[in-house]
Amino acid sequence: MNPQTDTQQRILDSARELIYSRSYTDVGVAEICEHAGVKKGSFYHFFPSKQKLTLAVLDSYFLDFKNDLLDQAFSSRLEPLRRLDKMAELVYRFQKNIVADTGQMYGCPFGNLGVELSTQDEPIRQKISAIFSKMKSSIQQALQEAVVQGDIDAIDVDATADAMLAYLEGAMLMAKTRNDPEVLRQILPAIREIRLYPAQTRKS
Amino acid sequence: MNPQTDTQQRILDSARELIYSRSYTDVGVAEICEHAGVKKGSFYHFFPSKQKLTLAVLDSYFLDFKNDLLDQAFSSRLEPLRRLDKMAELVYRFQKNIVADTGQMYGCPFGNLGVELSTQDEPIRQKISAIFSKMKSSIQQALQEAVVQGDIDAIDVDATADAMLAYLEGAMLMAKTRNDPEVLRQILPAIREIRLYPAQTRKS
Repeated sequence: MNPQTDTQQRILDSARELIYSRSYTDVGVAEICEHAGVKKGSFYHFFPSKQKLTLAVLDSYFLDFKNDLLDQAFSSRLEPLRRLDKMAELVYRFQKNIVADTGQMYGCPFGNLGVELSTQDEPIRQKISAIFSKMKSSIQQALQEAVVQGDIDAIDVDATADAMLAYLEGAMLMAKTRNDPEVLRQILPAIREIRLYPAQTRKS
Repeated sequence: MNPQTDTQQRILDSARELIYSRSYTDVGVAEICEHAGVKKGSFYHFFPSKQKLTLAVLDSYFLDFKNDLLDQAFSSRLEPLRRLDKMAELVYRFQKNIVADTGQMYGCPFGNLGVELSTQDEPIRQKISAIFSKMKSSIQQALQEAVVQGDIDAIDVDATADAMLAYLEGAMLMAKTRNDPEVLRQILPAIREIRLYPAQTRKS
């Protein structure tokens, strides 16, 4: 790694760690620089603002999430509905490891920032919304295959994928608020049973 | 109202509004005082810290939530499972009104602060966890009655109530991140179908 890339990466890594463990607003640029061992001028050479850095942090979280979780859980070698179980299991294991390391349940990096910043920062809200859409696509694809194979009845695949993603995020929120990853192990198995049917969502 | 009570109430009301629309960390004591039209000395006469004020804010949110939502949705005059529909409907209407007024989806005041502060402020985390327990009790009671009446099979009432509350919180999180209360109308109907059975939660 050349020194430039290394400095940029250190800033990104420090921001990832500090923001994930606390919040966006609680972590300032000065603290990120100190943690990364870089000067403020250097920070602004790579990132024009904390907002822009956080957009890069979100991309970086998603890349890891995709490699470590989505690509494994939503492998086409697994039966469609088994992919949901696998996602639940990997999410639980990931959070459990964080608690083992830090004593705290950090929750979902996307949900955390979505809740904290959606009313305050439109580009960050849009980025998180786009990440949720990608997560939803994986679920949607699995559900579509399950319908085609006849594993489940004709559901509203789009709304059900939204509902399952919401459930995953809500389980993470509850587990974080109780500081107990076992909440995930206990309630996430219900994710595969969530269904919305065309008639339900047509109600208004 | 005497002037003392009035000052205290104005501080509380300002904090409620500012924190709910943004976040805990983004709102400082100086801004709360300015919004409430009170001097800083006066603030510290009533509240020793922003943390203590926020604990009072949470009690105040919960009182309104109980009066406007819980007591109406979980009325014993409604059939047990209809109470869940009613809760979903009232949550949707409440959020839709906020969006109509402000253009923004604020989400759940308890979930917002739980996500933002659970790793950072133990008394606030515990307060929110206790509020979630009260919300869960209402759901649990409805489920218990539904089981006794034979409306639903023998479920794990405790785990299912957790799962339903998590789903409500997750739906709010998704709707906030998309800044679209219609997400609630679309996916919340599935809440009454969520089930966890003793065998599922006994797995380990």
